[in-house]
Amino acid sequence: MPEVSFSKSANLLLLSTSTLHGGEYLQYAREEIIDQLKGVSELLFIPFARPSGITHEAYTSRVAGFFEQIGIQVKGLHQYHQAEEAIRKAQAIFTGGGNTFLLLKTLQEMNLLSLIREQVNSGKTIYMGSSAGTNLAGQTINNTNDMPIVWPEDLNALGLVPFNFNPHYLDPVEGSTHMGETRETRIMEFHSFSTIPVVGLREGSFIQVKEGQMLLKGPLTARLFRKSQTPLELSPGLINLSLLNS
Amino acid sequence: MPEVSFSKSANLLLLSTSTLHGGEYLQYAREEIIDQLKGVSELLFIPFARPSGITHEAYTSRVAGFFEQIGIQVKGLHQYHQAEEAIRKAQAIFTGGGNTFLLLKTLQEMNLLSLIREQVNSGKTIYMGSSAGTNLAGQTINNTNDMPIVWPEDLNALGLVPFNFNPHYLDPVEGSTHMGETRETRIMEFHSFSTIPVVGLREGSFIQVKEGQMLLKGPLTARLFRKSQTPLELSPGLINLSLLNS
Repeated sequence: MPEVSFSKSANLLLLSTSTLHGGEYLQYAREEIIDQLKGVSELLFIPFARPSGITHEAYTSRVAGFFEQIGIQVKGLHQYHQAEEAIRKAQAIFTGGGNTFLLLKTLQEMNLLSLIREQVNSGKTIYMGSSAGTNLAGQTINNTNDMPIVWPEDLNALGLVPFNFNPHYLDPVEGSTHMGETRETRIMEFHSFSTIPVVGLREGSFIQVKEGQMLLKGPLTARLFRKSQTPLELSPGLINLSLLNS
Repeated sequence: MPEVSFSKSANLLLLSTSTLHGGEYLQYAREEIIDQLKGVSELLFIPFARPSGITHEAYTSRVAGFFEQIGIQVKGLHQYHQAEEAIRKAQAIFTGGGNTFLLLKTLQEMNLLSLIREQVNSGKTIYMGSSAGTNLAGQTINNTNDMPIVWPEDLNALGLVPFNFNPHYLDPVEGSTHMGETRETRIMEFHSFSTIPVVGLREGSFIQVKEGQMLLKGPLTARLFRKSQTPLELSPGLINLSLLNS
């Protein structure tokens, strides 16, 4: 795995989750979303992860409900006959959460991944994701928590950042009686096969990329896993990029 | 999906988990293991799922520790130069838990899946699995809880039973603040894409196939999910096979 980097032109907002317990859709990140999408009047929404199997239409209108409050119109990518043109013209793309395998497979079948990558890396299109949409911004989706209900042709994702995500990151539960493996154990197993760093992003946390800088936002630290190294807690604020080398 | 069945010659013992909280490895199913392996003096162990990344050697010796107590010698499949011959000669195979993707990918690369299927379906070899090894006995591994740390060429499994497993099945936690999806939601999403029934097997439960009959063992019920149908609780004891049609 060669050293990977990220485009200094990219504008990214990558949320661990769309909704905090007891909160409303995207509300907890409202100020940062307004800030990141300054000047954007229309957002292209990618509904393909279909959380709980809801339709593209229902998902898009849920998302539109939030963005209308902040003066942004939403169109779903499924509404376009010319998906490539819609992406080329998009000021901003938001990829919602749901099943990461289904999301990736759908974009593979539509052959849209490299176009989205180019648009975002060139700075033409802002990229925002939550949960599965944040997984998609990583190098691969090897660290998703989702069930593989469908089978993408490979696990390569957009690679907008030089690491993978584990969204909804959960710390090991002390005294748990459940015998399944912890997230930490699973991510360490991944590092038997890969050198890609993994960021465990707790609910309420998100990564912002703007003006060539990468920040951890939200009240919590994030857990950084690297091959053959002790995991590290990243503090909110500017991320030291030298920590992210594979 | 055509109607699928299972071989009336097969002898299967499929455990949701290897270890109950506070218990020792395989102890909770000791009596049924002794019963199912009657007459077996040597067991072929498949250690490829490598829980927590342990070596094949360490995993095999952990497993041997249990089986020695009941008078059965254990050899790991990794010890053989001629893996196919080892499988052809095996009285019984036990596939241990760990990462289901890694297990399946390793067996695909070694080209052993159809041979194991033939041996078990013909009644020549008893098959025992726990967790990932139980997933492997289903039609596909689409309902694993594991992280896709590696990528098999497809998700087709041994298909020894006419359904898939979700081992370590967890009921939705009332009042949970975690915003990830429940197992039930995930399995229902799977049924947007597949007609394969899924059995949610709780820790402490296992499926036994013997003399053409299929039984649910252990103190708990198991949850049966079928496309477009309300989930059903299966009681311990004989399973009504007509419920399992896709």
